[in-house]
Amino acid sequence: MSSSGPIRLTAHASTAQRPATDARITGGFWAGRRRVNAEVSIPQGPPRLEAAGNLANLRAAADGKGAFSGDFPFQDSDVHKWLEAASWQLAETPEDAELGSWTAELTALLASAQEPDGYLQTYYQVARPEKRWQDLGWGHELYCAGHLIQAAVAHHRTTGRRELLDVAEKFAALVDDTFGPGKAIDGVCGHPEIETALVELYRETGERRWLDLAGYFVDRRGHGLLEGDLNPHLGQAYWQDHTPVREAGSVAGHAVRQLYLLAAVADLAAETGDGELRAVAEHLWTSMARTKTYLTGGVGARHEGEAFGEPYELPPDRAYAETCAAIASIQWSWRMALLTGEAKYSDLVERTLYNGFLAGVGLDGDSWLYVNPLQVREGYEGANEADKAARRTPWFRCACCPPNVMRLLASLPHYMASGDAQGLRLHQFATGVYEAGGGRVRVETAYPWEGRITVTVEEAPDADWTLSLRLPSWCGEFTATAPDGAAPAETGPGWLGLRRHWSPGDVFTVDLDLSPRLTRPDPYVDAVRGCVAVERGPLVHCLEAEDQEPGVRFEDLTLPADAPLRARHEPGLLGGVTVVSADGRSRADGTSVRLTAVPYHVWANRRPGAMRVWIPEG
Amino acid sequence: MSSSGPIRLTAHASTAQRPATDARITGGFWAGRRRVNAEVSIPQGPPRLEAAGNLANLRAAADGKGAFSGDFPFQDSDVHKWLEAASWQLAETPEDAELGSWTAELTALLASAQEPDGYLQTYYQVARPEKRWQDLGWGHELYCAGHLIQAAVAHHRTTGRRELLDVAEKFAALVDDTFGPGKAIDGVCGHPEIETALVELYRETGERRWLDLAGYFVDRRGHGLLEGDLNPHLGQAYWQDHTPVREAGSVAGHAVRQLYLLAAVADLAAETGDGELRAVAEHLWTSMARTKTYLTGGVGARHEGEAFGEPYELPPDRAYAETCAAIASIQWSWRMALLTGEAKYSDLVERTLYNGFLAGVGLDGDSWLYVNPLQVREGYEGANEADKAARRTPWFRCACCPPNVMRLLASLPHYMASGDAQGLRLHQFATGVYEAGGGRVRVETAYPWEGRITVTVEEAPDADWTLSLRLPSWCGEFTATAPDGAAPAETGPGWLGLRRHWSPGDVFTVDLDLSPRLTRPDPYVDAVRGCVAVERGPLVHCLEAEDQEPGVRFEDLTLPADAPLRARHEPGLLGGVTVVSADGRSRADGTSVRLTAVPYHVWANRRPGAMRVWIPEG
Repeated sequence: MSSSGPIRLTAHASTAQRPATDARITGGFWAGRRRVNAEVSIPQGPPRLEAAGNLANLRAAADGKGAFSGDFPFQDSDVHKWLEAASWQLAETPEDAELGSWTAELTALLASAQEPDGYLQTYYQVARPEKRWQDLGWGHELYCAGHLIQAAVAHHRTTGRRELLDVAEKFAALVDDTFGPGKAIDGVCGHPEIETALVELYRETGERRWLDLAGYFVDRRGHGLLEGDLNPHLGQAYWQDHTPVREAGSVAGHAVRQLYLLAAVADLAAETGDGELRAVAEHLWTSMARTKTYLTGGVGARHEGEAFGEPYELPPDRAYAETCAAIASIQWSWRMALLTGEAKYSDLVERTLYNGFLAGVGLDGDSWLYVNPLQVREGYEGANEADKAARRTPWFRCACCPPNVMRLLASLPHYMASGDAQGLRLHQFATGVYEAGGGRVRVETAYPWEGRITVTVEEAPDADWTLSLRLPSWCGEFTATAPDGAAPAETGPGWLGLRRHWSPGDVFTVDLDLSPRLTRPDPYVDAVRGCVAVERGPLVHCLEAEDQEPGVRFEDLTLPADAPLRARHEPGLLGGVTVVSADGRSRADGTSVRLTAVPYHVWANRRPGAMRVWIPEG
Repeated sequence: MSSSGPIRLTAHASTAQRPATDARITGGFWAGRRRVNAEVSIPQGPPRLEAAGNLANLRAAADGKGAFSGDFPFQDSDVHKWLEAASWQLAETPEDAELGSWTAELTALLASAQEPDGYLQTYYQVARPEKRWQDLGWGHELYCAGHLIQAAVAHHRTTGRRELLDVAEKFAALVDDTFGPGKAIDGVCGHPEIETALVELYRETGERRWLDLAGYFVDRRGHGLLEGDLNPHLGQAYWQDHTPVREAGSVAGHAVRQLYLLAAVADLAAETGDGELRAVAEHLWTSMARTKTYLTGGVGARHEGEAFGEPYELPPDRAYAETCAAIASIQWSWRMALLTGEAKYSDLVERTLYNGFLAGVGLDGDSWLYVNPLQVREGYEGANEADKAARRTPWFRCACCPPNVMRLLASLPHYMASGDAQGLRLHQFATGVYEAGGGRVRVETAYPWEGRITVTVEEAPDADWTLSLRLPSWCGEFTATAPDGAAPAETGPGWLGLRRHWSPGDVFTVDLDLSPRLTRPDPYVDAVRGCVAVERGPLVHCLEAEDQEPGVRFEDLTLPADAPLRARHEPGLLGGVTVVSADGRSRADGTSVRLTAVPYHVWANRRPGAMRVWIPEG
C-alpha cells in the first residue's frame, strides 16, 4: 500500500520540490524506533485516552449526559492526534485489525458527538455550551478543528475511507460559514493549527474555500482581535497576536503556536505563490536557526509561556524545548525544504529529529518527556509540574506531546525524500524504498551509527536523471562512489549527486565521516560560554551521571577542548548505541577522569540523575 | 525625635545584638537617596493609589457602594505598605503637615472600611463577600493583615498615636479568634507575611497571644493545608507549603514568600529561644547565600513563579531578582545579624542594599524596577508584562515593589547599628548618629565613593567599652587608627574594633581600600562561566551601552581577566558616581576598546539600552 506525503501539492506549483510519491522505511535505526511506536506507543493510546477522560467526554457530548473530564478545553485534540497517528500507521500495517477497529470506533464516537450543525468540541458542548466561540483566546476550538482535519486527511489518504473526513469537512464548513469578513465572527484562534490543516484539506479535496479560509486566518492574526481575552502577564506574542506575520521580524512567543503558524505560512506560499509570505518565512527561519535554536534542534528557551526567548537566550538548564515544539519545527522546516529546495532546512530537520525530538519518547515507547533540557544538575528534583515533566512520565495532565510523537513517527517516511523534474533527492538516510522525481531507489544504511549510505537505483527514466542526497552541514569529510567511476559532485548547495543515465541496479554510495567532534558554542550564547559539546554525525551526545567514573562529582567534570575523542559501539547499552569517551579532568583536584557521552536522544532512560550536553572546558 | 528599630526586643533576650536605641542618617550617600524618597517617592504614593483604585476600594468597602478596582485581591497591601513608609518617615519629618494629613486620612479610611468584627480586605468585602477565608491559597487576607499590622506598629512607634494600631489589633484579634487548633479554621495564608508582623505586634504591645499566633502560622505551614487551592503548574513550594520549615533543606519556591517566612522564623527564634528554628534559619541562609544569590544580592532566578531556582541556577539575563525579594532578604538577614551577632549577615545586607535593592528605584524617585536582571541584550524589548518590568515604570499593575522600597528607605537607619552589653557595632556606614550598646557615636563618611569612615564617640560608659565596625568581606586591605595610638583588632569574625575606656571626642578612623577589582564567578554557576565582573567596595558595576565607545557592538565587548582597572569620580554623571574603566577588546576583530562600568544601582536611568554585569573574558 502506498503512502503519500503529508504535503501533497495539488495546486500552484510554486515549490522547488515535491514530496515522494512513495516512501517506506524498512530497516535500520528508524525502523526500530517506529516498531516500538507501532507496537507500544500507538496501542497504548486508546486506554490512556480512556483513563484520562477524553473518550468519556466524547460520549458525554454524544448522549448529553455526564460531566467534562480533564483540565483543558483542548482535550479532544489528543484524540484527534492519536487518530492521525493511527491513520498513518495503517498505511504500513493495514492488516492490523485492532488498530483498524480502534480507529473506526473513535471515528464513530466523534461522529456521534458532533452537533447537527457540525460543531465538535466536547469542552464547550458538555461544560459551557453558552460559550461556544466566545473565548477564542483560550478556547482552542479552531485548534481542535485543525487536528481533527489533519487526522481526517491522514485517514482518507491512507485508507480511502470517508467517515472521518465527513466529520471534519462538516466542522470545517461550519467554521467557514461562521468566520470571515462580513460573517458572524471576524476572529482567529488563540492557538494556530487550523491554518495548516485547512491547506491539507484543500490538498486532499481540491476545494479552494479551505485554502482561502487558511489565508484569512493567517492574515487576520496579529491585529489585536484576541486582545480582550489575553493575560498581560503572558503578552500578546503568546497567542501570536503581537504582529501580523508579514511584518514579523523574529520568531517569538509560544513556540508551538509560532511554528504551527509558520508551517501554514509556508503552505500558503507553496499553494498560492505568495512571494511575500515566502520571504517572511525564509527570514524568520534563518533568524530562528541562528539565534533561537538549541544544539539539539530544540526550540523554546523559556518555561514561562512555553516561549522563545530573546536572540541568543538559550539556557541549557531551563531550556523548555517542548517535544511538541521540536515536532512543529520539523513540520515547518520540511515545508521550507520543499518550498525552496534548499538543503539547510533538512539539515535542521535531521538535527531536530535525532536529538530534540527523539529524546521526547523513551526507549520503551511508553514514557515521555514534555520538556527537553540540555542540563540537569545533581540532586535535581523539579519544583513543579513543568519541571517534573523533564523526567519521563507515563502520560501528562496536558497530554499534547505523546500523540504528537506518535503521529510524527508514524508519518516519518514522508520527510525522507523529494523529487522534481530533474530527479530524486534523499533528505534523510534510512533503510527503505523511496519513489520521487520519476524514479525509485532503495537505501541501505546503518546510519546514524555508521556513515555509509548505499543507494541502489530500482527505477529511473530512460534519460538523464539526477540522484542526489543531502550532504549534512556537520560533515567535514566524505567519499562517494558511483557507477563507471563517475564522480558525484555538488548538485546544489548542500546536495551531493550525479546527473547521468541511470539504470536499475546502479549503486551510488556515500561514506560520511562520523568521527566524533567537539563543538564550541556560538560566542553570543552567554549561557554556555566556556563549554564544549560532543557530537558524532547527526547526534548530539551528553554526559549522564550513570556512565561516569565513580569518585568524581558530576558538577566537577571538565573537558579540555583538544581532548582526543574515541567512539565505540555498545550493542548492549540502551538498545545499542555508539558512545564517545574522552579524558577529562576534575575541577576539584585536576585528576584525570574518563568521560563517557551517550547520544542525547537516549538520556533519561535509566534511573534519574544529572546530565549535561555542554561540558565546561578545563 | 527618636526612631527605634523595626525589631525592638521586648521579651526573651536570645539575640546576640539588640537594635540601636537611636539611629539617624544625616548626610552622605543614603541621605541623598532618602531625601528623594521623602520628597518624591512617598508623596507620590497617595495619588498613585488613588489612580490605581486602591482608595476607591476602601471607600467602596466603607459605604457599600461601588465595584472593586484592580486585578489582585491584595490591592490593600499597597496602601498598608505606603502607610508604613509614611510612618517611618514621620519619625524624621514630624513637621511634614501633608504627610501627616495623608496618613491620618488613610488611617481614617481604613477604619471606616473595617467591618464591625474587625475584618478588613476590600477585595472580599466588595467583590466576593461570600468567599471570606475561603481561598487561603490565593486570597492574601492574612498577608494584607500582616502589612496592616506592620504599618500600625510603625505608626504607633514613631508617632505614639493609636488610631491605626486600633484597626490592626482589631483585625489581628479576629484572626486570632478564627485561626488555630480547635478554632473555626486550621490554616495558613498562601503568602507569608502576617507571621513576622505578629511578632512585631507582640513587641509593640507585649501581648503574648500575637507571638503564639505567629508560631502557630509558622509551624502549620508545609502540611498540605493549602493543597486544594493550588495550581500544580506552580508547585507547592510557590506557597511555601511543600515542607514544614523545620525540615526544609534549601530556600525554594516564591522568593518573597520564602523570605518573609524566614524573617518570621528568625523573629520567633529571637523571641522564644527556639534553637531548632535558629539552626534551620542559619542553614537555609548559608545555603541561599552560597548557591542561590546573585552578585548583586538579588534572589529569585526564575520568572516562572517569581521563584528560587536550583542551586547554582543563576542566569543573569533571566534573573527575576524582584525588588521585593531583595527587601525581604535584607529584612531576614538583619534579623539574623541581631540573632547571631555574625558579620556575614550584614555583609549580605550591604551587598543587597547597594545593588539588588537600590536598582529598584530610579534616581528620580518616581520610576521603578520590578525585575532586576544582571544582563539586558542589545535590542531587548520585553515580550510580556514581567519582561517589560525590567524597564523602569511609573507604577505597576501589581504594585508591590514601589511602596516596599519606600518603607525600606524610610526605615533604613534601623539597619545601621546594634549594641550589646559590651558596646556598639556599626553594621553599615552612613553619615549620622547612632546610639546603641550604652553609647552614642557620630559617623562621617563619603562611603561608598570613598573608603574613610570616621567615628567620633559622643557618649560612652565610664568603663571599658567596645566600639567596632563590620570589616566587609570584600575588603582586602584597610588601615585603622584610634586614640592614643591604640591598635584596633578583630573583635569577632568580621568585626574590627577596640575595647578601651572611650571618652567623648575620641575618634576611631578606618580606611577601607576601595580599589576596583575583577571578580570571577563561582565555577559552579554555569550561566556566567568565562566571565568577570567589576566591583568597587560594596558596589557591583555594570556596562551600559550608553557609556561605551561607539563603533563596537555591545555584544562583542570582552575584558581580559588581568586588565588594570581605573576608578574616577564623575560628579556630573547620574547624580555623581565613581566609574571604573578598563581596556577591553572587541571579540569581532580583537581591537582594543575602553570599557566604562557604572555602579549597577544607577543602571536604567538613561535611555533604554544593553547592560551587563558579567563581562566575557577575552
